[in-house]
Amino acid sequence: MSSRAGIVVTGTEVLTGRVVDRNGPWVVERLRELGVDVAHIAVVGDRPADITGALRFFTAEGMDLVVTTGGLGPTADDLTAAVVGAFQGREMALDEALEARIAEILRPLAERWPDLDMDALREANRKQAVVPAGATILEPVGTAPGLVVPPADGTGPAHPTVVVLPGPPRELQPMWQTAVATEAFVAATAGRVSYEQHMLRLFGIPESEIAETLRRAQDGGVDLDALEVTTCLRGGEVEIVTRYEPRDTATYDALVSVIRERHADTLFSDDGTTVDEQVAALLRERGMRIATAESCTGGLIAGRLTDLAGSSDYVAGGLVTYADDAKAAVAGVDPALIAEHGAVSVPVAEAMATGAVARLDADIAVGVTGIAGPGGGSAEKPVGTVCFAVATRDGPALSRSLNLPGGRADVRDRSTTVAMHLLRRVLLMGDDLAGGPRS
Amino acid sequence: MSSRAGIVVTGTEVLTGRVVDRNGPWVVERLRELGVDVAHIAVVGDRPADITGALRFFTAEGMDLVVTTGGLGPTADDLTAAVVGAFQGREMALDEALEARIAEILRPLAERWPDLDMDALREANRKQAVVPAGATILEPVGTAPGLVVPPADGTGPAHPTVVVLPGPPRELQPMWQTAVATEAFVAATAGRVSYEQHMLRLFGIPESEIAETLRRAQDGGVDLDALEVTTCLRGGEVEIVTRYEPRDTATYDALVSVIRERHADTLFSDDGTTVDEQVAALLRERGMRIATAESCTGGLIAGRLTDLAGSSDYVAGGLVTYADDAKAAVAGVDPALIAEHGAVSVPVAEAMATGAVARLDADIAVGVTGIAGPGGGSAEKPVGTVCFAVATRDGPALSRSLNLPGGRADVRDRSTTVAMHLLRRVLLMGDDLAGGPRS
Repeated sequence: MSSRAGIVVTGTEVLTGRVVDRNGPWVVERLRELGVDVAHIAVVGDRPADITGALRFFTAEGMDLVVTTGGLGPTADDLTAAVVGAFQGREMALDEALEARIAEILRPLAERWPDLDMDALREANRKQAVVPAGATILEPVGTAPGLVVPPADGTGPAHPTVVVLPGPPRELQPMWQTAVATEAFVAATAGRVSYEQHMLRLFGIPESEIAETLRRAQDGGVDLDALEVTTCLRGGEVEIVTRYEPRDTATYDALVSVIRERHADTLFSDDGTTVDEQVAALLRERGMRIATAESCTGGLIAGRLTDLAGSSDYVAGGLVTYADDAKAAVAGVDPALIAEHGAVSVPVAEAMATGAVARLDADIAVGVTGIAGPGGGSAEKPVGTVCFAVATRDGPALSRSLNLPGGRADVRDRSTTVAMHLLRRVLLMGDDLAGGPRS
Repeated sequence: MSSRAGIVVTGTEVLTGRVVDRNGPWVVERLRELGVDVAHIAVVGDRPADITGALRFFTAEGMDLVVTTGGLGPTADDLTAAVVGAFQGREMALDEALEARIAEILRPLAERWPDLDMDALREANRKQAVVPAGATILEPVGTAPGLVVPPADGTGPAHPTVVVLPGPPRELQPMWQTAVATEAFVAATAGRVSYEQHMLRLFGIPESEIAETLRRAQDGGVDLDALEVTTCLRGGEVEIVTRYEPRDTATYDALVSVIRERHADTLFSDDGTTVDEQVAALLRERGMRIATAESCTGGLIAGRLTDLAGSSDYVAGGLVTYADDAKAAVAGVDPALIAEHGAVSVPVAEAMATGAVARLDADIAVGVTGIAGPGGGSAEKPVGTVCFAVATRDGPALSRSLNLPGGRADVRDRSTTVAMHLLRRVLLMGDDLAGGPRS
């Protein structure tokens, strides 16, 4: 038994890359967690022939389920519901009760935009309430309803059931929970297999080392054919994701033992937690406040620290000392240090971090100064040279000078990850010094 | 005449979203610039059956060209060249001259890693030199060659020519230039049409208003069927992208006139420039320095201002005053203001902005304080309440209190866009006051 699905991501803005598709991979992961195998994501523009072509292809490939995203908006190029309805042999009809519910949702919008064209709004409202007869309605999160559309009786050989979802991830993701609970979805995925899936995260190691570890595990008797292991290098971290049927749990545990032994220093997460979640938990547990002092990363580290809800519990704030005079004016860095070592140096990173501790009254801070590029590099300090320092109220605790690969955006992004790992390391060092647990 | 293409992105890490696909959209744009229409990007895992399925589908759809990305590496799961060769009816054969050229590329690698397994390296070298007979070789940028593989004589009805490219964008992009110059590519895309493509950007308007404008343009005689118009709401901005054949330029100009007239206040870009590029140009032209003071956005506005290369020409730095005490300590906000109006208020946003001007010695600054959620909201100030103020050395210039939709990440992201537009408006107001041009 098995259950197979395809995904159709619609939207010319996605095809041409103006918008990055997050939905395809997100839905793939959700389906895989449910034991449904996804072979193919199709990205197509807002053209009925192309959407229909993808549906035809997935039907020919014997998919049980197709998920479409996008094309549920109010404009003329939003036509997914009609295309799916036609493909499934179902007439389109206005659902007046749904139209009224959408009008209720739109009411505050109309109040917020006093000059709004009410006829245009009513037209858009109506369009979004025209749905295939017999489809299951998924209540709107924004203004567009989703749909679960089984094939009408007598429609072609074995059409898949089609789940129609809105494009914005903040609408699609809550609506997904509703979709998977519908009778139509459950019936379409009756053949699904239940899998376990776990992720290990490592930092400070090249991906080729993991390939070698997997070979050694296999040689040592771990049956890797029972496991679906995917490794991926992402932003400097290596993620090892393993999917397996529950009866193969002992095999997975054996693999984890091999990895733990060979990579004790670089394995930082075996329970799915990110370095961000770990740093947040450590700060919160200890009642500590954190601050930042950033030059080349321009505020992205503070931005990353404040991504998590509840971060006001432990984030004091930060300093963005982009210009050299700002390093002195705002972080209290001695200009003589900059004159002697250069703005991109460990002594300046340390002075920035200790300055952030003082100015923000924080218990711990990270300072980062570097050359993101494309300009600014030299023979001694090429593009990608970035200096990091973590300081506590007792002064500098850990510093690094690294050369990071890639272009401007890569260097900035990778620097935020390095900063998070250095913070984690210092927070755990505290455990060591106090004789406490080390993970 | 026309020329149609499909793209096959291979890689399980892309299918599951651990790596974001940049190649598909990049190749789409390059093909569209050449006048080749791309209907469909297929994302599949490292499975021969799925790659072949996608090739079969594109053949059935009558594509002239297929571009594949990924799967050219040295490991067992890198099998794209063999799959494409089989599909095109061509035998795989070792190209010894190519093998020698790859060995030359590998030589410095072997010297740098003295413990390298030389047998494994030679095996990988050989594998990458096994190519379909009769294919055009594209010289490696890394170690893997690309290929242009026309169908062998007698192979099924009208197979497309398949261009096989490596996965890493830094290898794919230079190799693309070589690929499009080959005889095989030019022959496969002989039907291509040249298009114009332009983008208009608007801010402060819902997408439904654009739908109405397009309807009015059509009613007013603008032949929208001659234009391919796509609208997209992205982070609060509406993008209208229009593609058309050069003979329909007058039709496009007529559409632009209608849009300009109805949306004079909200149209901010008709030449492809982003608000970020416009703000950067205004600051640079005037020799001004900019600073930020951020609370709920946590550094993301400063991060956005420093995204552009060369931003050190006009960015002084910024303050992230996440905690209330930080607003006073670092931005000099009077605690009495916070006590009287609350941290999320226009007076506090103004004090943050004027504080940033003073502390960073800047000519202009933006202050942002709000409730990103999910916690922190109240009846008077619900989640999404965000106050903005732009100040110059003369004091506050422009302020707003808004209610932004969506979750935490949406509110933070949308706030950075609002801040950029407010900065742009103040910078252009300067023009007004001086009697200068207003765009």
